[in-house]
Amino acid sequence: MDESSPTEQSTGVGVVSTQTLQLELPPEGLRLKCGRPLPTVQVAYETYGALSDARDNVIFVCHALTGDAHVAGRLDRPDGPVGWWDEMIGPGRGIDTDFYHVVCANILGGCRGTTGPASINPQTGQPYGSAFPPLAVEDIVDVHNRLLQQLGIEQVAAVIGGSFGGMQVLDWMLRYPERVRRGICIASAGSLSAQALAFDIVGRSAITGDPNWKEGDYYGTGATPASGLALARKVGHITYLSPGMMTDKFGRDRRLDAIAPDAEPTTPEAFRSNFQVESYLEHQSSKFVQRFDANSYLHITQAMDEYEIAANYGSIEEAFERIRSKVMIVALSEDWLFPPEQSWEIARALLREGKAVSYCRLHAPHGHDAFLIDIEHMSEIVRSFLPWVTSGGHVKAAPHTTHRGDARRREFELIAAMIPQNARVLDLGCGGGELLSYLREKRHTAGMGVDIDIGHLIRCVDDGHDMLQINMDDGLWMIPDNSYDCAILSQTIQVIRRPLPVLREMLRIAPEAIVSFPNFANWTHRVQLACGRMPKGGALPFEWHDTPNIHLFTLLDFKDLCRREGFGVRDTLCLPENRVNALLIRLGCCNLGADRVLVRVTRNPDERAGRCTAQMNGF
Amino acid sequence: MDESSPTEQSTGVGVVSTQTLQLELPPEGLRLKCGRPLPTVQVAYETYGALSDARDNVIFVCHALTGDAHVAGRLDRPDGPVGWWDEMIGPGRGIDTDFYHVVCANILGGCRGTTGPASINPQTGQPYGSAFPPLAVEDIVDVHNRLLQQLGIEQVAAVIGGSFGGMQVLDWMLRYPERVRRGICIASAGSLSAQALAFDIVGRSAITGDPNWKEGDYYGTGATPASGLALARKVGHITYLSPGMMTDKFGRDRRLDAIAPDAEPTTPEAFRSNFQVESYLEHQSSKFVQRFDANSYLHITQAMDEYEIAANYGSIEEAFERIRSKVMIVALSEDWLFPPEQSWEIARALLREGKAVSYCRLHAPHGHDAFLIDIEHMSEIVRSFLPWVTSGGHVKAAPHTTHRGDARRREFELIAAMIPQNARVLDLGCGGGELLSYLREKRHTAGMGVDIDIGHLIRCVDDGHDMLQINMDDGLWMIPDNSYDCAILSQTIQVIRRPLPVLREMLRIAPEAIVSFPNFANWTHRVQLACGRMPKGGALPFEWHDTPNIHLFTLLDFKDLCRREGFGVRDTLCLPENRVNALLIRLGCCNLGADRVLVRVTRNPDERAGRCTAQMNGF
Repeated sequence: MDESSPTEQSTGVGVVSTQTLQLELPPEGLRLKCGRPLPTVQVAYETYGALSDARDNVIFVCHALTGDAHVAGRLDRPDGPVGWWDEMIGPGRGIDTDFYHVVCANILGGCRGTTGPASINPQTGQPYGSAFPPLAVEDIVDVHNRLLQQLGIEQVAAVIGGSFGGMQVLDWMLRYPERVRRGICIASAGSLSAQALAFDIVGRSAITGDPNWKEGDYYGTGATPASGLALARKVGHITYLSPGMMTDKFGRDRRLDAIAPDAEPTTPEAFRSNFQVESYLEHQSSKFVQRFDANSYLHITQAMDEYEIAANYGSIEEAFERIRSKVMIVALSEDWLFPPEQSWEIARALLREGKAVSYCRLHAPHGHDAFLIDIEHMSEIVRSFLPWVTSGGHVKAAPHTTHRGDARRREFELIAAMIPQNARVLDLGCGGGELLSYLREKRHTAGMGVDIDIGHLIRCVDDGHDMLQINMDDGLWMIPDNSYDCAILSQTIQVIRRPLPVLREMLRIAPEAIVSFPNFANWTHRVQLACGRMPKGGALPFEWHDTPNIHLFTLLDFKDLCRREGFGVRDTLCLPENRVNALLIRLGCCNLGADRVLVRVTRNPDERAGRCTAQMNGF
Repeated sequence: MDESSPTEQSTGVGVVSTQTLQLELPPEGLRLKCGRPLPTVQVAYETYGALSDARDNVIFVCHALTGDAHVAGRLDRPDGPVGWWDEMIGPGRGIDTDFYHVVCANILGGCRGTTGPASINPQTGQPYGSAFPPLAVEDIVDVHNRLLQQLGIEQVAAVIGGSFGGMQVLDWMLRYPERVRRGICIASAGSLSAQALAFDIVGRSAITGDPNWKEGDYYGTGATPASGLALARKVGHITYLSPGMMTDKFGRDRRLDAIAPDAEPTTPEAFRSNFQVESYLEHQSSKFVQRFDANSYLHITQAMDEYEIAANYGSIEEAFERIRSKVMIVALSEDWLFPPEQSWEIARALLREGKAVSYCRLHAPHGHDAFLIDIEHMSEIVRSFLPWVTSGGHVKAAPHTTHRGDARRREFELIAAMIPQNARVLDLGCGGGELLSYLREKRHTAGMGVDIDIGHLIRCVDDGHDMLQINMDDGLWMIPDNSYDCAILSQTIQVIRRPLPVLREMLRIAPEAIVSFPNFANWTHRVQLACGRMPKGGALPFEWHDTPNIHLFTLLDFKDLCRREGFGVRDTLCLPENRVNALLIRLGCCNLGADRVLVRVTRNPDERAGRCTAQMNGF
């Protein structure tokens, strides 16, 4: 969360400047969540990219704990400081300023231009100090909402933020549902975990235990609680990196200017190590102390600690009921401050409320800080998720109409024929969303995909589908009962570790499931085994020892399972790969001739397709 | 690592007392690793259980960072404090005092009876304070070694310790290899990770930044650096619990005596939360400040930080070359301060040096602190690993001679027939060690097992085998080339995710591999598939959808794979389950008749068993 010092060259939005705006407030000032008012509020903000005539292309960026409004470009001069998320914002970047108008503002309580504890209290003419009222995330978002309204922006195309910024994104969607079309919430949570609370508690007690803090009224005393603030920041920096990245960056390396190990231990230096990691923490904390105010740190961390969606609204589900935005939840694999499980919890609650949500978990060896750097896929995900706007919006990739071979295309047609118009479909193992797009085109379906691959997720999202990047073997319990009209499992059941629980879940989620699979009883396989070999070829192209197909079975086996489980079978379509097999199916020898099988399973055990249907696939 | 305050009833060793002993030192005193001497050293220790006449039943317990000599029983009176590892030590417990003589001593630099910075410096008559020399783990172990020698103990049956105690165990084995028969190292590491260093660095800077620390000379000043020490301890306590356990214990619960949320924020109280987790950290740290000395904390954490086996000896492997003890490495699943990977690193290095090592990873939702509490399996593992001693030693479980059915027993006999006398064997998927025990009995082999199940590990270790509790799908690269005469994979290859890499590893580790598997080409399976069903029964008893057998293949397939991979096949034994199959094999139709197959694979591609051998299994 060191959002202040990227050193890379900015080739993006160029030289920018921070502007300030005085909020137009009622005479009593801005009433905060705590009940106390702030008489005046100033907001520091930056904007990049042209605002469209329809004013529909605004992307509002929420910064994290210690960030500021300077999110992209060079500040004030060509060699000025680079914005903290410059890699994400600019022409051709994840948030493309050729199409979008980006706004980022310093948060209330901060110390980077927006009113905070170090600002002058107009009632006393002195800095607020201890008189600054306690803050809530809601107050921060309200101030930004007033900023946008004063700028004439009624609705934003998207709100995006990571970490504490992600909490602001959630609050935007919760309390201004009509003003936010899409929300991107990265490495965040609906409330801090007990462990993250504990780190904040330690950090704050380091500051308030510093004799220079003076209960917050240190301004003008000639001393600041720098020592306590530095300690708090050191604790913070440990949590921003994954353990693995800390090992990679520092390991047990020593400083070059190492203290001689046999030096007489009579000074505090004796208990300073000469490890690189100590230099890093000292460097980071001393830089931080120069740019940040201890009271801001206390107020903002406390606002973060106190934010708790579940407590504010009864439960996280009750809260999310009011969300109208399309949501993208991004988790970072090695983040232990806002661990993936917390992002997943948000996504699950949105799912349970039937909201449009996508979830992905990026490989992020850096840990929490990865949301600030250009980790693989992050920009692509943001770009693919942002909406079209009148100024053009992002360039979509070529439509993904390529189908994997004829057999696959034929299967799509057959599935489409089984799906009613406007149905809601869930595609498990959806790949790049080819089937979802095909069904949307042919049947005007709305759907969601599930797949484990991040590249697939990006293609799906780019094509406008919601998608969860999860492993089906972990269960599908988070998808509500009857939330879809049809659940599809196309050529995937044989690679799942435990197929039966997945089948049961499908028929809980939807009244109907379409399952397709390779038929192990195809005569060519029978002949191969009869000759003493593990069958291979056709729909099962792999060697026995490296095949992903770990559960093999026949059409008869599958129908038996359905009967035992009390599932009905509405249709059984047998797909041959050649004329011989087609003939066998036509002669009624389905289990002998089918290379692949497509079965439409229902909850009603009385449904029994009298016989299989041959699907000639052109033969 | 709160080793001071168990509240449970002790039913173990009863009322005990801490003794002290003055070390007999040369006139110049004890020379420390830093080169400076300590003129006198006193050691506080406790003992329980009778010392055997042969003095061969001593278990030395190494305590962790802030522990002391009082490891079990009630101190001084029937309602005195309970020892910090009372659950492990006592009659009938993991370390059974009916058989073993337990010794535990406070470490050098501590503040619980052994000489430390708060002790009187005989040269000045004042507490050492800043004059106390820097310590190393080696100094701590040397003092304990001198203690044992003065107690007349030349060799210990085992040294055991967790966390920083585990580092002492490693140092014992490294520098006193002949004096330690077995070592148990729990939740420890050969050196701290960068992240763990960082936490210690923050903790020490909190203490040395406390104005009351006065560079260590605060004794007698009327004030102590309690505030800094408390902060250090709070950081420590966060790291001792897993994030999940912190959530389970505290979550976001509030204190009952909560500060009114609308209280005027004019005191430092304003930035104290009312979260339970804050109460916990404050309670723990205030207790700690009363019992522990800040200078001891500085010295001991620095000794821990500086310990680095790899740096001291060139590499961790070069270091471990000198170890003569049998070693048990115990990792704790949710420990993030000494994560399982670090324990595994120790085990791997021991393996690469060909040492007798077992490794297990216990389910430990508590995190690091779990080594102090009675988590499942911990006592069993310790009990099963401790050696027999003349006073009886631990009671071994009944010998595990039960074989799983006739087919299994027959397979054991066939494998034994292939194994030379005194061979070293590696049994992959060894279960409870039945085959290893059988081979040891029949062929006097020495062996190691690999299995994923902790119950199996305990049975194996109890039977005297080394064992690694790992998942074969993660690879076997840590087992050195040619470290065994034969690697066995009995009825397991079909459940491995990627069988081929495992086969290759087996023939890297040993010149010969014995692999047994169910033969998918048995005629009953052929008939079933010919009838349109996925084969089931005999050696493949599971349903297609819930079978652990995810890679099916035939005798011919396996031999083909061996040929393609350049492996030789020395013997192929075909095991029938009934008279018909036996007849088929006798007639030469091995692939048709065999229910199970046993193949002896070698590195020499020219070895080709001319034909299969029928193994009639009594038919």
